[in-house]
Amino acid sequence: MELTHIEHIGIAVKSIEESLKYYEGVLGLKCYAIEEVTDQKVKTAFLKVGQTKLELLEALAEDSPVAKFIEKKGEGIHHLAFATPDLPGALKEADEKGLRLIDAAPRKGAEGLNIAFLHPKSTGSVLTEFCSDK
Amino acid sequence: MELTHIEHIGIAVKSIEESLKYYEGVLGLKCYAIEEVTDQKVKTAFLKVGQTKLELLEALAEDSPVAKFIEKKGEGIHHLAFATPDLPGALKEADEKGLRLIDAAPRKGAEGLNIAFLHPKSTGSVLTEFCSDK
Repeated sequence: MELTHIEHIGIAVKSIEESLKYYEGVLGLKCYAIEEVTDQKVKTAFLKVGQTKLELLEALAEDSPVAKFIEKKGEGIHHLAFATPDLPGALKEADEKGLRLIDAAPRKGAEGLNIAFLHPKSTGSVLTEFCSDK
Repeated sequence: MELTHIEHIGIAVKSIEESLKYYEGVLGLKCYAIEEVTDQKVKTAFLKVGQTKLELLEALAEDSPVAKFIEKKGEGIHHLAFATPDLPGALKEADEKGLRLIDAAPRKGAEGLNIAFLHPKSTGSVLTEFCSDK
């Protein structure tokens, strides 16, 4: 499959407002968008560094996947997303090679990207996402 | 401070050989170097995707920091490394802004880079590294 770059790194945080004191105030990155992804019950904040975005993820409800992640593991890196020009092809190949897919078909994610997640059980415990431009 | 891109993402794995079946065999990335970093008691394998390297980390001893990480948290993303053209300046600024430094001064890391780690207590639980070219 063709993966061109790390599209983003998802980071689970308790509070985007608090986290931006570090990412903007210390690292000097710039948050250029804040968006709510209602079906995932998260608020997301995006900062860019080179080709890659940092996607800060704050839970909007106690039953949000991000809230459960923080409850279990604490704040920290939540997932890794690769950009691909051919998302259906990448998913097909992953499936054929025996990976467990969370999303069997692409769906809409933050920023209008087409996305699909692979299960960490088949990716060395790294929750992995494929993304392609809309 | 100036951070130009994600230099690498460190991923703790039990076995580089096993992990490459996924990263090379499924994702189609190419491992271009394997190196031992003796003072950290790890073997590292590098693959590149866009501007960013994936650094697979396999412990070489039971008291390796990577072995302890896996024992506590399991395999998965271990740290995030930002590239900076001015490592001493970035460290000075981080220190002045109250971050806890693991390395107060740059040291040599894998691939001959100058590196320094920040403590996850001050970086939202993300073990963070700054790197600059030799």
